Amino acid sequence: MTALTRRRLLAGASAAGAALALTPFATTSSQAAAPLAGKQAPSFYRSKVGDFEVTVVSDGARVAPIPDGYVRNVPKEQVLAAAEAAFNPKGSLFAPFNPVVVNTGSKLVLLDTGFGAGIGPTVGLLQSTMAAAGIDPKAIDIVVISHMHGDHILGLKNADGSLAFPNAEIKVPANDWAFWMNDDNMAKYQDPFNKVQMGFNRKIFSDLKDKVTRYEAGKEVAPGITAIDASGHTPGQCALVIASGSSRLLFQADVTNVPDLFLRNPDWHVMFDHEPEKAAATRRRIHDMAAAEKLLVTGYHYPFPSLGYSEKAGSGYRLIPVAWSPVI
Amino acid sequence: MTALTRRRLLAGASAAGAALALTPFATTSSQAAAPLAGKQAPSFYRSKVGDFEVTVVSDGARVAPIPDGYVRNVPKEQVLAAAEAAFNPKGSLFAPFNPVVVNTGSKLVLLDTGFGAGIGPTVGLLQSTMAAAGIDPKAIDIVVISHMHGDHILGLKNADGSLAFPNAEIKVPANDWAFWMNDDNMAKYQDPFNKVQMGFNRKIFSDLKDKVTRYEAGKEVAPGITAIDASGHTPGQCALVIASGSSRLLFQADVTNVPDLFLRNPDWHVMFDHEPEKAAATRRRIHDMAAAEKLLVTGYHYPFPSLGYSEKAGSGYRLIPVAWSPVI
Repeated sequence: MTALTRRRLLAGASAAGAALALTPFATTSSQAAAPLAGKQAPSFYRSKVGDFEVTVVSDGARVAPIPDGYVRNVPKEQVLAAAEAAFNPKGSLFAPFNPVVVNTGSKLVLLDTGFGAGIGPTVGLLQSTMAAAGIDPKAIDIVVISHMHGDHILGLKNADGSLAFPNAEIKVPANDWAFWMNDDNMAKYQDPFNKVQMGFNRKIFSDLKDKVTRYEAGKEVAPGITAIDASGHTPGQCALVIASGSSRLLFQADVTNVPDLFLRNPDWHVMFDHEPEKAAATRRRIHDMAAAEKLLVTGYHYPFPSLGYSEKAGSGYRLIPVAWSPVI
Repeated sequence: MTALTRRRLLAGASAAGAALALTPFATTSSQAAAPLAGKQAPSFYRSKVGDFEVTVVSDGARVAPIPDGYVRNVPKEQVLAAAEAAFNPKGSLFAPFNPVVVNTGSKLVLLDTGFGAGIGPTVGLLQSTMAAAGIDPKAIDIVVISHMHGDHILGLKNADGSLAFPNAEIKVPANDWAFWMNDDNMAKYQDPFNKVQMGFNRKIFSDLKDKVTRYEAGKEVAPGITAIDASGHTPGQCALVIASGSSRLLFQADVTNVPDLFLRNPDWHVMFDHEPEKAAATRRRIHDMAAAEKLLVTGYHYPFPSLGYSEKAGSGYRLIPVAWSPVI
């Protein structure tokens, strides 16, 4: 926020021209001052999708400087300008991480798992957010991974290497598994980003090869939750359609990264997209559909509570966030 | 949300044309199903404004049919279309109510008080929201009322008529007090809306005449909180500038009602505006300034957490909501 002087605000405020001589406020109370709370509200949010109860459970957020090459096909100045126009701190980008829990009535399903412990102080909060929401990790029946990037999989394990959701079946997209767990690919993709991701995948999955279920696009992965092909961002990314009665919610994972940049500009190639042209085509296919159908969408990197509608705007889309309902 | 058939979503999802024969998901777990929580997250949200801690504390929200004459100078069809385009339920409008608590370090200040008990099941939630936020009503030092409409004042008293914030000084705009507490005006304004408001004011304030402090625009009403003239919506409405260090937050009260209608269309005359032309001029004056200064604004009827920026768009403004920060 730019500095707004009180003088200017007051000067502009009164048609008659307000007196600017402000007397200091007298503090005469004998009450003790209330301490600052210093703690954010628990960042979960519930909605109904048909008979299902959907809880967005924040893993946190972080602000990071925008690196060179962050958008491969756009000059950095243009990226910085778009970020700043969207009220990001100058030169930086605010990126949130939003897993989702779906209670279908018969199954408790977690979609993606956040960063887990140890990555940073403002992320890896999923376990504490779930605790605030009254969701027991042991009660999770199925974890569905949309794609195998670190911010979606690392939360599968606790700091000591034990399973964070010990009773859950773990489902990963077959085409992502084939790509990320292939040692030839590990040798081939030596750029810093992919190298780190390959390491994360081995850290999490090396001892889970017999436990993990690989799923295909076009199939139900849990009752009422169907995977749809959303490849491009990764070789096997799937979006997930949550359907109950006539209601639908689309978990679009990383089809678009932060909406201020990539939903507004679907043809921008974020550095994390494995096949940028395919990722952009997927983005347009999914969000053309979302806009046409007025489909409720949750984006992993949308601002919490990360629920909204895609509206066509210019050559891209604008996110219309849902209005927070204080009661469910 | 319109009905989106799974067939269409899947058909649109796969470039190769996905197989549509979905087999029912086998539910073979022996675990008991987790019960639905059925309860929303506590709807409070904290931010820092300089050294101050600001907590938006929702009083709730409600959905109501849009009545004839809701916008005095615009055909009803146009209003209905704007509401529906903003994803309101067809024919209705979603209206939230967002009081704010400011902890200045020396004073705990509540800005407006919500509906109190008895108006409806989804409003009057301020006390429970405050409890969730760990804010003791007895610790409130000052209540500042922006204007004397029922949804801003009724929460001053509990259901039994006792004071909800028993240790607080209560401050009301002098020009609103003069208008609403004047019995000649009560006799004169017999239309349903104003009649009800006059009744609310007497219910709350009749036995508080000697307790209430009347404040003027242009003066500090609490340490670092300055009233500015925002009349038009009511004869004496004030907006409140919360200032600490170089940071500012503008509590714009009802300068604009729900932003999808009245921030986008500042010249629309909502039926609650006492002097519609003046209210519209105030709206433009305040939001021109907010847009030029990139000033953080909280609107009483903005969607929770009700914090955002005003951006010029077309002949009006667009609300850019702040990105929710999961940590303070």
